[in-house]
Order: sequence, then C-alpha cells, then structure tokens
Amino acid sequence: MKKLINDPSDVVDEAVAGFGAAHADLVVVSHDPTFVRRAAAPTPGKVAIVSGGGSGHEPLHAGFVGFGMLSAAVPGPVFTSPTPDPVVAATQAVDGGAGVLYIVKNYTGDVLNFETAADLAEAEGITVRSVLVDDDVAVKDSLYTAGRRGVAGTVVVEKTAGAAAERGDSLDAVAEVARRTNEATRTMGVALTAGTVPHAGEPSFTLADDEIEIGIGIHGEPGRERVPLEPVDAVVDRLLAAVTDDLGVTSGDRVLLFVNGMGGTPLVELYIAYRHAAEVLEGQGVEVTRSLVGSYVTSLEMQGMSITVTRLDDELTELWDAPVETAALRRGR
Amino acid sequence: MKKLINDPSDVVDEAVAGFGAAHADLVVVSHDPTFVRRAAAPTPGKVAIVSGGGSGHEPLHAGFVGFGMLSAAVPGPVFTSPTPDPVVAATQAVDGGAGVLYIVKNYTGDVLNFETAADLAEAEGITVRSVLVDDDVAVKDSLYTAGRRGVAGTVVVEKTAGAAAERGDSLDAVAEVARRTNEATRTMGVALTAGTVPHAGEPSFTLADDEIEIGIGIHGEPGRERVPLEPVDAVVDRLLAAVTDDLGVTSGDRVLLFVNGMGGTPLVELYIAYRHAAEVLEGQGVEVTRSLVGSYVTSLEMQGMSITVTRLDDELTELWDAPVETAALRRGR
Repeated sequence: MKKLINDPSDVVDEAVAGFGAAHADLVVVSHDPTFVRRAAAPTPGKVAIVSGGGSGHEPLHAGFVGFGMLSAAVPGPVFTSPTPDPVVAATQAVDGGAGVLYIVKNYTGDVLNFETAADLAEAEGITVRSVLVDDDVAVKDSLYTAGRRGVAGTVVVEKTAGAAAERGDSLDAVAEVARRTNEATRTMGVALTAGTVPHAGEPSFTLADDEIEIGIGIHGEPGRERVPLEPVDAVVDRLLAAVTDDLGVTSGDRVLLFVNGMGGTPLVELYIAYRHAAEVLEGQGVEVTRSLVGSYVTSLEMQGMSITVTRLDDELTELWDAPVETAALRRGR
Repeated sequence: MKKLINDPSDVVDEAVAGFGAAHADLVVVSHDPTFVRRAAAPTPGKVAIVSGGGSGHEPLHAGFVGFGMLSAAVPGPVFTSPTPDPVVAATQAVDGGAGVLYIVKNYTGDVLNFETAADLAEAEGITVRSVLVDDDVAVKDSLYTAGRRGVAGTVVVEKTAGAAAERGDSLDAVAEVARRTNEATRTMGVALTAGTVPHAGEPSFTLADDEIEIGIGIHGEPGRERVPLEPVDAVVDRLLAAVTDDLGVTSGDRVLLFVNGMGGTPLVELYIAYRHAAEVLEGQGVEVTRSLVGSYVTSLEMQGMSITVTRLDDELTELWDAPVETAALRRGR
C-alpha cells in the first residue's frame, strides 16, 4: 500500500484536521464527535442542510460545506457510515429554528444511522426531513444497498437544495427541491484500478491490466460487467447510454453534464471523456447547458470516472447557478 | 498503459476541445494553432498575460485562463513545449495595446520558444516582457533545465500577476509582481509512482513498491534521492525543510502554504500532509495566512505531491485574495 498517510487509524482525523486548518475562513471542525460546520453562525429562520457518510470520497461531503450548499458534513470512518451521535451534534450546531434537511446517499448503514439521528433530533425539538440520493443506474440492490446506490449525483442534490435553503425556502420546499433533483439525475461509473482502504492494506478488488469494470460503485462494489480496456469514447458510450436511457432523456431536453473523477484519474482524461459525452448528447438533440468536470465524489485513489446527467428546468438551472462558497465549489455572489 | 483516452496522438486536441466545451462561458479555444483564450475580448489599456508549456500538467495552464489570471494559455504536446507560432497567435489574440507578459516555467524548450515568440510578437509591434518561474529547490540544473525547474509555484505567480494586470498595472509593474512572487516562492515534490506519457506507453521511471523519490520533477525527472516509503509526516518534514531553508523563512513571516497533488493522489492525502506542514510552520513561529490544497500542477496520473511556500507581504496577500474566475480557481468579485 503506497499512500501519503501516517497510521491508517488516523487517516480521517488527520484529514479533517487538515481540512479545517486549510479552510478556517469557511468551516469549523468539531472533534469528538467529528463533524464540519460552516464558520458562520446559523441564520435564524433559514433551513439548515446536513449530509455525511463514510470518508474516502473527498471532497464529498466536507468540501461542500459553506454558503449556498451544506450547513454541516459528518464524515464517518473510511467507507463506513458515521454513527447517529455526530449527526445529532451537527444537527444541533446548525439548526436555525427552521428545521434541518438530511441528504443521505442510499447505503444501508447511512440510511439507518441518519434515521436514528433524525429521531433523536426530533426528540430534542428539531424538525428533520430526509431525502435519499439513489442516482446510480448500474445495479439495483448491491452489497451495501437496498435499491440503487447514491453516488456523484449527490453533489447536484446538495447544490440545488443548498441554494433553495439560502433563498429562504421552507423545510418542505427545500426537501422537495432535493427530491426533484435526485429524480432528474442519473449516474454510472467505470473503474480502471481499485482503491485500497487504509485499514485493509490491499486493493478492494483486482482487475487485469487490460480489464475495466463498468458500473463500479464508489466503494469498489461490483458493477455490471468487466470488459477489456477500450478507447474512452466507447466507455463513455456505455455509461451515457445507460444513464440517458434510464432518465428518459429526449431531444430538446436541457441537461447538466457532470464528468467525475474517482480520485486517481487526472483532469486531462476527464476532459477527453467530457468532449465525447457532450458531442453524443448534442447529436441526440439534447442541449448541454451546464457542466461540471473534476474529482468531486471519489473512491480513494481509484482510477476511473463516472458520468452524471441531470435534466434541468428553469428553476434547477437557477439553483445550480446560485452563488456558492465552499472549499470544493465556488461561484461569486 | 491504462488510461481513459482514445488514440495517444489525440490526447491534447481532445482534452483541449473538451475543456473548451465545458467552459464556454470562460474561454474560447483556437485550433490550428492551438491556444485557449478568455471568452471576453481584450480590455484596451490592460496588460495581457500569456503562459503555456507542455500538456500533462492540467489544470495548468488553461485552467487558469479567465478574469484575474491568464489572458491565454498555450498547451504543447504532452511534456513538450509549444512552438513559437501558437504563442505568437495567442499574443496577438489577447493584446489590448498595453503589452503582454509571458510567464514561462524554466525548461530549456519553453524558454527558447517563448523567446522566439517574443521576438516575433515585438516585430508585429506588440511589447512583450517575460518572467521565468524557477521555484523547485530539488536540483540545480536537470535533464531539461539550466538552473532550477519551474513547478507548482507557477500558479502563485500567475495569480498575483493576473491580479496586478486586472487592477491596471503597467507591463513593467506586472512583470515586477511576477518576478517578486517567484523570488518569494519555493517548492519541492515527491513521487510514489510514475506517470506514463501516452506516446511512450510505459511509465517514465520505476520505483519499488516500498520506495519514493524525493525532489521529483513534474515530468518525472530525477530528484534528490530515493528513500524507503515512510509516514507522510516524515515526507512533509523533508520537503518543507528544503523549501523553508532555501527561502530563508523565519519566525514572524507570513506565508501561503500550497500542497499540490501530482494527479493520481486523492485529496484526502493532501489534507493529511497540509495538517502537518501547517503545524510545523506554526511551531517555527511562521504564520500560515493563506492556503491552497488540491491538484493544480500535475504530472499525468503520477501519485505524489509537492509543497510550495510563498512569503507574503501586504501587497502579495491582496493580489492573492483578488477576485478570479477561471475553471480551476474561483473567488467572488
């Protein structure tokens, strides 16, 4: 295992501490229990948004804490859900009296722990709504999920819901924006290599030198099939067809096209993939009106990418464009 | 070679086309000759800034084209300087009548080609100044360089010079800001694995499973020494000591601390490194007043990082903080 780490047991604590030190203008880190919240105090009357999940997907979620997006993020151990306690503590820290929305990737551990946290927070008098993200079309049910997995589309949900909260929407309205964004979003990924969980010390799976896995999950869970390495245009065709078929994209639709790196893939490759994906969509009469290219929802140092398409309407476009000030995503206000 | 590419000969053209498609709000791509310029027309009376160099270091340089930073970027083939022609074409495209500054990483090919381009542009009546970036303390002279190599510190030089141009400084004043920033900046890197140049098809060098290379260049050029893999805190100690000794950082100094990923290293590891680097500096009485963490100057999919320290004064801090709107770096205006 070749990584820039110290003791594998300290990976999350040290990374969160480094994140807090590097972005002290944006966030405050709580240790014991561990969560990251906005540096600014909660705005009375505004809905707060909390997300979280296992670590190893950085910048998700802490990288999206700040104005216009998340109020707090709760990182668990690598690839392991945080327990309810830090979620409740984060909820209490950011509630501004208008309620708190949980955005939860659809993995069994996360779903259970955020449900328990919601019950505990409600018992403390804080109104909580939860929205599950399940954008991954690769497989129905998997090693860690009942139903579809929540993957890169989470960024889009966090962005539009965050903008809705910032403009002053009610808790139910913010939850509705999150649900609507999730329903308009589909993703599928591919792996060229496996990441290595620090504690395990060995890659999560093995691929031959000339083999890739289509439909990989962000924890290295099995996808749809293993195929020989092929030109990226062919890989993009596979991912994009699965995504657009499932979403039912048709000529005249406007979409956000998001090419996401898995952590070990350089930007130059992501732009090559973006080029072809945009061309294919435009060839189908689909208008790519917004884009995102970069490593936003990763799987440690896995080489690979995912393609996400979100069908946009005027409101989702406006929420996507709204100002945001986080470590991983910024747009002027 | 496992990469998300098509034909190795098409890597740069396809990546630049994808970059242009994804960021059509910010840039316009010229093909034949290839360069990337701001979407906005040149502002009469404002100094323009052009940079460039071999591809494979993305987001450098095209990712820094936009308001507050570069006017144009000229990407050459992978790890190979662009020829003078596209540099001249970019110069003509962005000149606003106040002259053009070239920011050039100190590699022999880049230096020669940008010098020739400057002569040709001057012959066309455009005033050109050039500033070399040579922040890498690892080695004096190398495979591709007379003197020190220009590496991650280039981002800092492009940012402060870009802000100076945006506030309306004269060509000589913008060049002076660039020179002063370079003089205040030092970097050293480490590699865990080698990147593979698409045309070559094989990794640029070989490291044993338990071996890392201290002082690596961004083209995989030899560094100072190969040592056994060690905890990242020890690696940070090596890099930071070399950087701060050379820069002569002392207690009371204010600095920018920049931890840069080499392309294949995930963000989580960079934050772990940042944490220790910031602690060490603060233990020496050095105030880390600004930070940057991410993969900004890469070497294809190399796993590794570099640490950059820039000594800040009030003016450099103000220029660093000034608004910027590029694909890779944004700060509100």
